[in-house]
Amino acid sequence: MYQIGFDVGGTNLKVGAVHDSLEIAAARTVAFPKGETYDRIAELMAEQVFDLARELKIRETDFKSIGIATAGSIDAEGKTIINAHNLGFYNVPMVEEMHKHFPETPVYLANDADAAALAELHAGAFRGKRTAVLMTLGTGIGGGVILGGKLFRGGTCRGNELGHMIIQHGGPVCTCGNRGCIETLCSATWLIQQGRRVVVEHPLSLIHDKAEGDMDKVTAKIVIDSAREGDAFACDIFNAYVDSLSSAIVSIVMLLDPEVIALGGGVSLAGDFLFRPVRELVKQKSFFKVEHEIVPARLGNTAGIIGAAMLAKNEETC
Amino acid sequence: MYQIGFDVGGTNLKVGAVHDSLEIAAARTVAFPKGETYDRIAELMAEQVFDLARELKIRETDFKSIGIATAGSIDAEGKTIINAHNLGFYNVPMVEEMHKHFPETPVYLANDADAAALAELHAGAFRGKRTAVLMTLGTGIGGGVILGGKLFRGGTCRGNELGHMIIQHGGPVCTCGNRGCIETLCSATWLIQQGRRVVVEHPLSLIHDKAEGDMDKVTAKIVIDSAREGDAFACDIFNAYVDSLSSAIVSIVMLLDPEVIALGGGVSLAGDFLFRPVRELVKQKSFFKVEHEIVPARLGNTAGIIGAAMLAKNEETC
Repeated sequence: MYQIGFDVGGTNLKVGAVHDSLEIAAARTVAFPKGETYDRIAELMAEQVFDLARELKIRETDFKSIGIATAGSIDAEGKTIINAHNLGFYNVPMVEEMHKHFPETPVYLANDADAAALAELHAGAFRGKRTAVLMTLGTGIGGGVILGGKLFRGGTCRGNELGHMIIQHGGPVCTCGNRGCIETLCSATWLIQQGRRVVVEHPLSLIHDKAEGDMDKVTAKIVIDSAREGDAFACDIFNAYVDSLSSAIVSIVMLLDPEVIALGGGVSLAGDFLFRPVRELVKQKSFFKVEHEIVPARLGNTAGIIGAAMLAKNEETC
Repeated sequence: MYQIGFDVGGTNLKVGAVHDSLEIAAARTVAFPKGETYDRIAELMAEQVFDLARELKIRETDFKSIGIATAGSIDAEGKTIINAHNLGFYNVPMVEEMHKHFPETPVYLANDADAAALAELHAGAFRGKRTAVLMTLGTGIGGGVILGGKLFRGGTCRGNELGHMIIQHGGPVCTCGNRGCIETLCSATWLIQQGRRVVVEHPLSLIHDKAEGDMDKVTAKIVIDSAREGDAFACDIFNAYVDSLSSAIVSIVMLLDPEVIALGGGVSLAGDFLFRPVRELVKQKSFFKVEHEIVPARLGNTAGIIGAAMLAKNEETC
C-alpha cells in the first residue's frame, strides 16, 4: 500500500508514492510553477498523482492518503495555507482543492518543518523517541516539535515558530519585524551576509577567493569551508555562528529538555565541524551541565515527502 | 479525604492538609530550620503531619499521600533533591526519609514551580487547559509547564529551567554562569539592582525617597510603585523590564503556543500596570500577531501546598 507525499517549496514541487515500508517507490520533482493560480497548481499536482499511479500500475484511488507539506503557515484546522510568501499563497484552501480531484481520498496538510520532524520520527533520528526537536538551518529557520511521541502543533494548533524565539533581545531586525530572533543569527542568510562583508572588506581572505571577489557568489558553504581551511575571517564568523546556535539550542533545552535535537537544512551539512563545537557549547551553557543529544537530521531531501505521506498515520497533539 | 502538601522554601516551611475539594482544611507555617541536618528536618516535617492529624481528629495514616514541593532541582525518579542552594540541600533522599516516618503512605516530590503549575491546573488559571506555562517572577525565575493536560517534567524528566532560557545572547552574567538568561533580565533581582543604582545616582528620584536613600531598602515593589507614580527613572527601569519580559514570553509562545501563560511571584502583584503593557508587547512581537492569554497566577501563597498535595493525582509526562 502507498501514501502520496507532496513537498511544496518555492523552488521545487516534489511528490512521492511512499510504501508502508517507508521506501519511496516512485517520485517526481518539477520546478514550482510560480505565478500560476492555486487551482491550476492543484491540477498539476493531481496530474502527478495520476502519473505515479500509472508508473506503479495501480489506480489513483488505491493511494490511501495524500499528504501535503508546504512552506508557510497552516490554519488550526489543517485545511488552509494562511501564508507562504515563497509560494505566493495566501489563504489557499489546499485540502478542499485537492479533494476536487480526489473526493474519496483523505488529504492532509502540514508545515514542511513539521512534516520533516514527523519523517524523522517514523524513519530517522527520532525513531522511538517521545520528546524531540528538529531545527532546520536554511535561508530561514524551521522547526518541528515531537511531544509524547506525536507531532506537536502548538497549544492552540497554530504551529511553532521556533525561528522566531528571541535569543538576542534588542538585537538585529528580523524579516518578521521583531528583533533578535533565532533566524537573524542562526540562518544560512546570516553566514552569507557576514561572508559578503568580508568579500568587500578583506580581499586577502579565502572567502574572497572562493567567491571570486563577487559578493553575489558567497554561499554559507563557502564561509564554512573557508573556516575549515583556517581562514581567520571565516573562523571569526563561524565561531560567532556556533555561539549563537548553541544559545538557541540551550533555550529549547531549558524549556523542553528533549531526548534528542536534530539539525537539518543546508548548514547542517557542515557535519562534525559544526556539531562538535555546538555540542560542547550547549553543554557548557546548559543549566544541567550534561551532554544533550544533538545529531544531524537523517532524511535530508526526502524528509518532506516522507513526512507528508506519514501525516495520515500521525495522531497530532495540540 | 485529605492529602498532605509541603511547600519547602528557604524562608518558610509550609504544610497543609488539602481536602479533595481542594480546600486547605488545616495548615502550618514555620521558619525553615536552616542549618539542621536533613533527617532532623524530615523529623520536624513528620511532627507537623501528626499535628495536622490531631487537629483534624484523624489518624496520620488517614492521609492518602504526602507531597513535597521544594526549591531546587529534583532527580529524574522524583526521589531526591539534587541541589537546593537556599535550603542547603544536596543529594537529599527526601522521599526515603519521609517514608521512615510514614512507611505506608505514598510520598511525592517535585520542584516548587512545577507544583505551582499543577495547582493552577487543578484549582486555578489552568483549569481545563491542555497547554499552559507558569512563570514565577521572584528573586529568580521559576517555571512550570503543562502539556497534554499534565505536568510536563521535560523529555528526560530533568525538569524545565525556564529561567535559564537565553533571551540576550552575550548579555549579563547569570548566577548559573551563562549569559543573558531570562533570570538576569526578568527577575525581581534585576528591578532591585536597577533601583539601587538610581538611589546612588539620582537623589531626586522617587525611588530614593521611598527607600529613604538606603540602597538596602530598595525592593521591586518600590521601583514599580515609583513607576506607577510617574517617576522618570523608575519608568525607564519598568519599561525596560516589560520589554525584556515580553521577549521572554514571546520565546515560550513561539515554541509551545500555550493556551494560557500565567505570571506569578512578587513582581506579578503589580497587576494590570504590568499585565497590560506585557500583553501589548507580546502581541506586537509575536510572529502570529494575535493576543495571547497572559493572566496572573491565581493561587499565590497556597500554590505550593495545593500543588504538592495534587502530586498524587498527577500522571506526569516526560
